[in-house]
Amino acid sequence: MTVNKQIILDSRPEGAASTKNFVLREQAIPDLRDGQVLVRHLFLSLDPYMRGRMNAGKSYAQAQALGEVMIGGTVGVVEASNHARFKVGDTVVGMGGWQTHSVVDADAPGMLRTVSTAHIPASAYLGAVGMPGVTAWMGLTQICEPKSGETVVVTAASGAVGSVVGQLAKARGCRVVGIAGGEEKCAYVTDTLGFDACIDYKANADSKSLYGALKAATPDGVDGLFENVGGPIMDTVLARTNPFARIAVCGLIAGYDGAPHPMENAAMILVNRLKIQGFIVSERMDLWPQALGELGELVAGGKLTYRETIATGLESAPEAFLGLLKGKNFGKQLVKLSD
Amino acid sequence: MTVNKQIILDSRPEGAASTKNFVLREQAIPDLRDGQVLVRHLFLSLDPYMRGRMNAGKSYAQAQALGEVMIGGTVGVVEASNHARFKVGDTVVGMGGWQTHSVVDADAPGMLRTVSTAHIPASAYLGAVGMPGVTAWMGLTQICEPKSGETVVVTAASGAVGSVVGQLAKARGCRVVGIAGGEEKCAYVTDTLGFDACIDYKANADSKSLYGALKAATPDGVDGLFENVGGPIMDTVLARTNPFARIAVCGLIAGYDGAPHPMENAAMILVNRLKIQGFIVSERMDLWPQALGELGELVAGGKLTYRETIATGLESAPEAFLGLLKGKNFGKQLVKLSD
Repeated sequence: MTVNKQIILDSRPEGAASTKNFVLREQAIPDLRDGQVLVRHLFLSLDPYMRGRMNAGKSYAQAQALGEVMIGGTVGVVEASNHARFKVGDTVVGMGGWQTHSVVDADAPGMLRTVSTAHIPASAYLGAVGMPGVTAWMGLTQICEPKSGETVVVTAASGAVGSVVGQLAKARGCRVVGIAGGEEKCAYVTDTLGFDACIDYKANADSKSLYGALKAATPDGVDGLFENVGGPIMDTVLARTNPFARIAVCGLIAGYDGAPHPMENAAMILVNRLKIQGFIVSERMDLWPQALGELGELVAGGKLTYRETIATGLESAPEAFLGLLKGKNFGKQLVKLSD
Repeated sequence: MTVNKQIILDSRPEGAASTKNFVLREQAIPDLRDGQVLVRHLFLSLDPYMRGRMNAGKSYAQAQALGEVMIGGTVGVVEASNHARFKVGDTVVGMGGWQTHSVVDADAPGMLRTVSTAHIPASAYLGAVGMPGVTAWMGLTQICEPKSGETVVVTAASGAVGSVVGQLAKARGCRVVGIAGGEEKCAYVTDTLGFDACIDYKANADSKSLYGALKAATPDGVDGLFENVGGPIMDTVLARTNPFARIAVCGLIAGYDGAPHPMENAAMILVNRLKIQGFIVSERMDLWPQALGELGELVAGGKLTYRETIATGLESAPEAFLGLLKGKNFGKQLVKLSD
């Protein structure tokens, strides 16, 4: 009998999240009922939205229940199947959670889909050709709506979402400026991802310095902002917006741990007739096929670059997740659960 | 020779605007050149946007030049004409400024238009059937996009813009809740304008009390917000938004005098996937005919109620304007300049 290792949300954070909020549990894997599939996970995806789910309060998604397996995207291999559509050995993407295995009612819509690893590595289905990639595509194309020649700014530019945003915007003829933490990430953003410029917010810790660097990098102002961070960095970019700039609010990671940041430059909404719009990628499932089509083609053709930080073993997930919230990851943060 | 009395912007405010920022000047009216029209003003419109123009900094419109006549909408009568399209005695609407007369190059597009006072009083062309009315129509129909059964909140609800917003939203089948200052204004908003409820922000000075009153008035939450005020009142309404609520930012009067207010509840943009959009009515001239058509029909048919506060004589304009910024007016603030 195989044992399933699981990480459970044991308590809600007060202020910053900590490893103490999680607990490891082992469980026997139950026999499959009709229509169920047993998946052995290859990779678990760690994403900033999980921090919001840890809070009891209203966040942009339902709270994660205490005592239950942490929610999370997974890619895995079918080990056993009681469902005609899934065969042993299939590579499948789903929301398996922070555990080594999952038993999935495969008939429920959107629970499990088979993917091909012929031209795309399995892990990419959790990144550039998965939820983060679709998030990038959706915010950029549906809210920022960049036109060729415009300037687009992307925060958390080296991350799983930001890196895709910038490359998609470049492909649309924009000047693309990233904001990231540290020289190494900035070098990656410009040299490997091909952004026109990248601003190191750690080297520009006060807002005056950050504004100066942004001004130099955006001589024609900012027409689109893809916002993953919020707080003072967002305020600084708002101060550089052009009239009718569009701001896609994808994440406000700066405020997840404690008191949310006010938007100091709210007056710019009127001054520059901005459109600021929040979105959640899972609410527009109708757009996923189009987005995944473009992203899959780009990755398979080697035209979309991405980077992964891979922690090994389920036990490493809490530390890796806390690191992600602090920007310690470099590109898509994954946990490898089996070969 | 007729003398033209003018009010000039003499200095820029530091903090709150004051009567000392203005100076009265008298000037001989020059002879008309070809294509020019002399207009004797009946009414001058006073509007919150003028406060933004008084600042040197970037506002939502170009700064008003020092030493020049204050900008402003006017309705008047043609006294003399060197232009084939305008006849002596015509009632005309234009941007005549804070002065008793204006000499207008009538060929410049959008400078002057003739209106009929057969079914609509001249002053209404500065209010419900003028810029404030079109502002209301545009923010409501193009940004708030209310559906029947939804709840729309309007700040500065008894004002020239807010009163029209609410009546148009009621006509579209919405529950409409106003926010206004004082019992008398609130009674007018519900009893005369027909809003479903009105909250007195002066009687609910702390945000907890204001939130409680808003919650009671919006049992199904808030789907649309037409924002004229900004600051703590806007933050309180943001806390009552439903998912996918739309916020039209028309004015942020709370921040015009001095330090702008931060938006404390910026996290709601993501939590509720809000769309927040600023707009200026003069940038969508293509929509004016449709808006004026609907508004003119409603006013002529007695189906759109509005109220005016009329100061008399050009000299009273500065005081009346400062009163407007403090909410002392009741409905559309006008200055009567001649009979």
